Amino acid sequence: MARIVQKFGGTSVADIARLEHVSLKVKREVDAGHQVAVVVSAMAGVTNQLVGYAQSLVGAAKSPEYDVVVAAGEQVTSGLLALALSQIGVPARSLLAWQLPILTNVDHGCARIEEIDPQQLEECWLRGVVPIIAGFQGLTKQGRLTTLGRGGSDTTAVAIAAAVNADRCDIYTDVTGVYTADPRIVPKAQKLKEITYEEMFELAAQGAKVLQTRSVETAMNHQVHVRVLSSFHEEPGTEIVPEKRLTDFIHVSGITHRGDEARITLKNVQNETQAVADVFETLANADVHIDMIVQNVSLDDCTDLTFTTPKGEIPRVVRALQEKNKISYDDLIIDPNVAKITVVGVELQRRLGIASLMFKTLAGMNIPLQVISCSAIKISVLVDESAAEEAVRALHSAYGLDKEFMI
Amino acid sequence: MARIVQKFGGTSVADIARLEHVSLKVKREVDAGHQVAVVVSAMAGVTNQLVGYAQSLVGAAKSPEYDVVVAAGEQVTSGLLALALSQIGVPARSLLAWQLPILTNVDHGCARIEEIDPQQLEECWLRGVVPIIAGFQGLTKQGRLTTLGRGGSDTTAVAIAAAVNADRCDIYTDVTGVYTADPRIVPKAQKLKEITYEEMFELAAQGAKVLQTRSVETAMNHQVHVRVLSSFHEEPGTEIVPEKRLTDFIHVSGITHRGDEARITLKNVQNETQAVADVFETLANADVHIDMIVQNVSLDDCTDLTFTTPKGEIPRVVRALQEKNKISYDDLIIDPNVAKITVVGVELQRRLGIASLMFKTLAGMNIPLQVISCSAIKISVLVDESAAEEAVRALHSAYGLDKEFMI
Repeated sequence: MARIVQKFGGTSVADIARLEHVSLKVKREVDAGHQVAVVVSAMAGVTNQLVGYAQSLVGAAKSPEYDVVVAAGEQVTSGLLALALSQIGVPARSLLAWQLPILTNVDHGCARIEEIDPQQLEECWLRGVVPIIAGFQGLTKQGRLTTLGRGGSDTTAVAIAAAVNADRCDIYTDVTGVYTADPRIVPKAQKLKEITYEEMFELAAQGAKVLQTRSVETAMNHQVHVRVLSSFHEEPGTEIVPEKRLTDFIHVSGITHRGDEARITLKNVQNETQAVADVFETLANADVHIDMIVQNVSLDDCTDLTFTTPKGEIPRVVRALQEKNKISYDDLIIDPNVAKITVVGVELQRRLGIASLMFKTLAGMNIPLQVISCSAIKISVLVDESAAEEAVRALHSAYGLDKEFMI
Repeated sequence: MARIVQKFGGTSVADIARLEHVSLKVKREVDAGHQVAVVVSAMAGVTNQLVGYAQSLVGAAKSPEYDVVVAAGEQVTSGLLALALSQIGVPARSLLAWQLPILTNVDHGCARIEEIDPQQLEECWLRGVVPIIAGFQGLTKQGRLTTLGRGGSDTTAVAIAAAVNADRCDIYTDVTGVYTADPRIVPKAQKLKEITYEEMFELAAQGAKVLQTRSVETAMNHQVHVRVLSSFHEEPGTEIVPEKRLTDFIHVSGITHRGDEARITLKNVQNETQAVADVFETLANADVHIDMIVQNVSLDDCTDLTFTTPKGEIPRVVRALQEKNKISYDDLIIDPNVAKITVVGVELQRRLGIASLMFKTLAGMNIPLQVISCSAIKISVLVDESAAEEAVRALHSAYGLDKEFMI
């Protein structure tokens, strides 16, 4: 007997027929003698509709009431799946975040789980009942509803798995696993049999939409055994494992690109640490998210400062930098037509050749690199948006990912 | 300063524009210095959609999970109205049934409110915040969600008004008040300026859809001052008042008809009380709702027993009566083409002529009366469905309701 958390995303529960299909997947694990807890998202499209309603009233601002509105979708799915399971003879009950409870901080719209009380889950299992947990939702200590941000149900599932020491957390989604690149861009993209937590974290953070970044972080912290699987196809997915358990060593495990950021350059900022600190303090106070930052070494009095930020935050950036008159610069240049390409691999820190192969490949294509940013297991470069997809395909070949290496 | 509960139904909150319109109605009362609590229904159509989902899985059976599914709509509206109010500078917060809490019995799908804790409402008012309560929802002592049945938000509103000793409970709806008959059937139907609790109770129970029956019962028990008003038109509605406060005495206050029931006759049941008791015990055990019952005095060994039941329950009735072999009868006759016409008036108990006017009018139209049923303030007759609308119009004239008696 194993303890298994199953999570089903929005397209997996998009209508009643799919919910019934999901109920069979749950039944199969129950019939095999496992203790199963299920986490569900809202039916596909529902959250978008609710977000649309809320935004038409208050724009993008997140508030307690925003969360009350957008958390409703998961409640519906959890009740419906419990009904579908009862219908096929599997006792089940819904559990909403406030009922468990799943306690979070008060960061409405993207709250962080702080504590999960597993008592009711244990009670369900004792009585042979499958708990169906509404994903995405949380509760503050003050008794208000919160939500965990886009893809938050992944994090609910992994956190539940950690709280009950589950043997496995199976994330059922509309793709068959984690790929070396987006198959829509790179036709030869390969499904990975396994990937490390760190690599998966970078892939998620750099734009692979298969898992919420925070869910990978939670899995890494609690060493939760996560599998990414398809709801619609019976085939092995991708396992997320600690590095030491990797069975295949692949130098590079994936190449992502995202085009949702803009590059902003401040020309001729004072070449002092204080001036740079002022810029980013100003932006932080304006709640602007910054991704890449680059400043070249310069011996002059002034220097250029470049950073990237989500396109939607450009107006806030401009307002903040113009209002704050202690920041002096000559010009503010905004380029929204950029894309960030990232190569992720746990071997990166050991093999310097991986980075140079990236630069060499892009140089051979005459693609200028605008910004470069590295971490232990990834290299990101900012390039012109028009060159991005071609660059991803070329890098996919250069790193030898085109050949079929999965069994 | 008065304490006011405002309730807005599904068509009043059907989209964002209407929610913004509603927020102005709330603001007006707040600006006048009143302590306001608001109760909202789900956006029009939402509950039907959720009920449809649940029924496609489990049919009409009510269960805890059914309630989890269908209660979600009110959560969305309460959050959205709180956002809309904040937008126009009125501090507001949503309160879901489990947050107050609104405790009910465990009768899922049509739970009865047992207790409301007004503490959080008082706290909101102390802080100058308008509480926006999700209607229709309840919570059992075991921590499960319930719902109060169709139109349950009316009952939430009246029960909240009772719990906080409100000066007034304003029910905003898509009609401008309570009418002497359905204006779609009787073009000369008049809006009532006021009506007693008892009359309103009968009208609601006999098919007037303007208020949930249980809400009128709750209002009567706690002497809540209820007004029925239009969300869309600025005109006086109908006030529900204790009999002693009536300013106008009208002999008959309304004529309703409903065609959703069927007449069932058991031919030649044994003429003993035990036999009749067996029939209705069997039906009660099968959870069948019975409305009218009639059995003629008979000196024979056998007699005919007639009752009415909602059309949807016919299969259950037939199954129950056939399975139970201790009940003997010769034939089971089902007539779904019947309609019940009811005349309601607080004066009925004092003026016997009111009943005979009804019979005389229908006799003059050659409409046979199938079943007659009376209470202190109403007379109902069962007639052929095809004659119902014409009969309602004729009775409306006969009782002098066609003339404009409202100011």
